[in-house]
Amino acid sequence: MDKKITPRRLAGFWELEPEKEVIFENMIDSIKGVFKTHCFLPLDTPVMELSEILLAKSGGEIDKEIYRFVKGSTDACLRYDLTVPLARFVAMNENTLSFPFKRYAVGKVYRGERPQKGRLREFYQCDADIIGDGALSLVNDAECVKLYADIFDKLDINICVEVSNRKVLFGLVRELRAEEKFSDIAIILDKLDKIGKQETVNLLKELSLSDQACDKLVRLVSISGKGEAIDEAEGLACDEAFKEGINELREVYRYLNALGVCEERYKINFAIIRGHNYYTGTVFEAYIEGKRNLGAVGGGGRYDDLAGYFSDRKLPGVGMSIGMSRLFNLLESEGMLRTEEICPVKVAIIPMGQTLEKALEISAKLQNAGVSCEVMAEEKSFKSKMKQAGKVGVPFVIILGEDEVKNNVLALKDMNKGEQQTLKFEDVLNIVG
Amino acid sequence: MDKKITPRRLAGFWELEPEKEVIFENMIDSIKGVFKTHCFLPLDTPVMELSEILLAKSGGEIDKEIYRFVKGSTDACLRYDLTVPLARFVAMNENTLSFPFKRYAVGKVYRGERPQKGRLREFYQCDADIIGDGALSLVNDAECVKLYADIFDKLDINICVEVSNRKVLFGLVRELRAEEKFSDIAIILDKLDKIGKQETVNLLKELSLSDQACDKLVRLVSISGKGEAIDEAEGLACDEAFKEGINELREVYRYLNALGVCEERYKINFAIIRGHNYYTGTVFEAYIEGKRNLGAVGGGGRYDDLAGYFSDRKLPGVGMSIGMSRLFNLLESEGMLRTEEICPVKVAIIPMGQTLEKALEISAKLQNAGVSCEVMAEEKSFKSKMKQAGKVGVPFVIILGEDEVKNNVLALKDMNKGEQQTLKFEDVLNIVG
Repeated sequence: MDKKITPRRLAGFWELEPEKEVIFENMIDSIKGVFKTHCFLPLDTPVMELSEILLAKSGGEIDKEIYRFVKGSTDACLRYDLTVPLARFVAMNENTLSFPFKRYAVGKVYRGERPQKGRLREFYQCDADIIGDGALSLVNDAECVKLYADIFDKLDINICVEVSNRKVLFGLVRELRAEEKFSDIAIILDKLDKIGKQETVNLLKELSLSDQACDKLVRLVSISGKGEAIDEAEGLACDEAFKEGINELREVYRYLNALGVCEERYKINFAIIRGHNYYTGTVFEAYIEGKRNLGAVGGGGRYDDLAGYFSDRKLPGVGMSIGMSRLFNLLESEGMLRTEEICPVKVAIIPMGQTLEKALEISAKLQNAGVSCEVMAEEKSFKSKMKQAGKVGVPFVIILGEDEVKNNVLALKDMNKGEQQTLKFEDVLNIVG
Repeated sequence: MDKKITPRRLAGFWELEPEKEVIFENMIDSIKGVFKTHCFLPLDTPVMELSEILLAKSGGEIDKEIYRFVKGSTDACLRYDLTVPLARFVAMNENTLSFPFKRYAVGKVYRGERPQKGRLREFYQCDADIIGDGALSLVNDAECVKLYADIFDKLDINICVEVSNRKVLFGLVRELRAEEKFSDIAIILDKLDKIGKQETVNLLKELSLSDQACDKLVRLVSISGKGEAIDEAEGLACDEAFKEGINELREVYRYLNALGVCEERYKINFAIIRGHNYYTGTVFEAYIEGKRNLGAVGGGGRYDDLAGYFSDRKLPGVGMSIGMSRLFNLLESEGMLRTEEICPVKVAIIPMGQTLEKALEISAKLQNAGVSCEVMAEEKSFKSKMKQAGKVGVPFVIILGEDEVKNNVLALKDMNKGEQQTLKFEDVLNIVG
């Protein structure tokens, strides 16, 4: 073949160099471990769904962000989140699943937007949801918050989950007789952090809300803190939904306390609203301590009805989500990745002279003992092999000459200390094992 | 919402019920563990590649089996294997990777064929490849065979890897002056198992080969066994490629011996040919002991040139592959799945009276100790909760009444033995931990 095709990857699609992939997979394994101790089951749905399923929300209308393709009789789209596939799965299996159904999923999702810094078209998302049959205790809302605490604990990252309840804002808006403007108001208040108080008030006024109404709204979303923040907000209105939200928030807060979640890991913040209209109660967002400006690393909340498009059964749920690819990129750019132990080789064996088969025998014995080991069998000089071992970061090298084989010993070099010892196999195993 | 959409999944796409997914993920974790002790690095490429990359082999011609779609300026296809993406990745990074490059990948691949029993359109494949720069020792061919032995050992499944070398057949064909018919001959001989000797001879004769030629070919592919099978075949020809293949096979066999691979786990079988023309040396297929009729659960071999379409650099490689979805379905239908321990819950706590918050405290303490535990907090009767715990297969239930809380003890029920004890937390932890 003469004419070569330039190897290229699709722009915005997720791919890590293997050393970084090691770190990424270790993160995912830690997270899965937490989900398992919390008794969540894994669910792995196809990356494609029938268009009529995926586009149910938009009434079949195709969003330009969605990858859709028609092949023969198949009209399908790549999933853009893990929630619609969950809804489809639960609706398909509602008679056999045992509720509350707790599932976690770590998978790729697709958004066909123009790729730009930080914007990915293929990326990993990590979700955990608890679905109830008809009703679902607020204990589950607290558990979702605790999941963040436990997960980021495992990842050695300090976070704080900021919790609110959409009923509180809705109730206040209703008391202010602006019920029909709720969505617009929510969208404006959601931007408070970015645009500041004054601009927020200006935008609210454009909805022709009274000064007093604007003032009350801004006051609510300015309240944050520990439990006392709930008491502080409580005085702002006496609407039923408002009271209900306050009580739910208090209950969730009490459960978080009972679950022994560390004080620093959660707080109340009425500025947490979450754009999505399908959140109907508890809402939360997780931020890395001291890096709130980088945005939330995860979020979620309570929804009344998971599978309304597919089933008559009322299936309320609460879920938490982490944008894994985004989190990874963020940790990398902040220099917070765990770079230790990315070298796949614990022990490299360099055979000298006629010792290759003995080297293979030793490597197999080390592997059987669980030590990641490989034989450097290629036709290269000793010098270049030592150089490569050093470059890759191999901690131990066994230099196997014919004398060592004769005397049934091994020359073990500690690459970090630069020391070399002649030892019996058992002693080598004790050191590297 | 009144009009409901019937929840359906794309036919032929991979999705397991969560309990089975637990088993599947345990299998994958075991396999990844083996790859790691063999010092392979993980690589996770996008499910989509640019069409010009994925269709390089076919000269850009679109195979009807391939899912392709054009979106704006993007012309992409879903990957149909994990090898082309590997070739693309290695060619893109050939100047920074350190060779031999050992990578494993577990991922979904796509074949747009009409779904039928056993035929999947989305399924998991698991590959491990070792890529050399210019040259690659036959030690790596042996390591790929050992990977099967170690992996299926971990999975508690007895297999035998049948090994051959395509140079042997090629050399014999060349000596028989039928070089230009090699592909046709290989395809016919590859079917020997299915169609039997007589039919094979008939088909060979249609290629107008002499009786004596047909006889020699059938004799070669009828040879199988331990090392002596190599000696037996050796006499059949003296072509250079033939001899080279025999010697390579002998060398690989010697390395397998040195690696201490159990005698039952591998054998020589000259009937192993592998359809793909890109295999140029060692070839192998893995079969489950006593179930050879079900077909190979994996296969692979040596290829001269991984990335010829993308790079001038000669990158020889050897790889092994397991069809994970196919293997799982096969094990399930044969009743060979490990169904123990699929229940995600080790301990379920049923709060009675005003003990919910204490129950949450205990569950958190058990989870911190690594015990998968959940509180049954829904508004349901004690009876129905016990029934559900039994149905799901929860091994331990803690019944937490107000008296237990007062006396700081726990009532622990062993669901398998049906026994109930009143214990201190520490004693419970000793039993369930």
